[in-house]
Amino acid sequence: MVKLVTLYKKPANIQVFEEHYSSVHLPLLEKIPGIIKTELARFFAGPQGEPPYYMMVEAYFADRGSLEAALQSPENRAADQDLMSFAGDLVTVMFADTYESQ
Amino acid sequence: MVKLVTLYKKPANIQVFEEHYSSVHLPLLEKIPGIIKTELARFFAGPQGEPPYYMMVEAYFADRGSLEAALQSPENRAADQDLMSFAGDLVTVMFADTYESQ
Repeated sequence: MVKLVTLYKKPANIQVFEEHYSSVHLPLLEKIPGIIKTELARFFAGPQGEPPYYMMVEAYFADRGSLEAALQSPENRAADQDLMSFAGDLVTVMFADTYESQ
Repeated sequence: MVKLVTLYKKPANIQVFEEHYSSVHLPLLEKIPGIIKTELARFFAGPQGEPPYYMMVEAYFADRGSLEAALQSPENRAADQDLMSFAGDLVTVMFADTYESQ
């Protein structure tokens, strides 16, 4: 599988960020075609002190072709436009091949 | 579930790094008690150009208590010592609560 990984730095106003994420962004994200599952992670600590990121969202696709198709979809453009509007200065987006064990 | 997330920046020598990871570090990681599954991701691209990280390893635990116990285990100390020896300048380690959908 492949995944689209979005790392978010800590927002200035967590409550406003979380409200926008759940009520506006997540519904747009869920419309993107080809997503098999998504996983949201909220970082609460790290061995070196406060973690450098607040949250990570991983959206899984069957293969690179499905990811490519998703990236070119109008649904992704809408989600991306929203992302830039509320978290453009917070996000790092990356694409990865994944390998699971156990 | 909770997970231990390790982000790796791109190593200077990918071949040496990958060989150490698979032959030395992964066997140490797999000995840590309480790990339910691990997922390895290699980043191959990003919309803003070259991704800032090379690889990510996520180790999943049942809950924060299991993670705490794992962190205090001798197996984790061995894995951490090895990690610092071959990738201390490359890694960011964080702990997260996870939420899966679909």
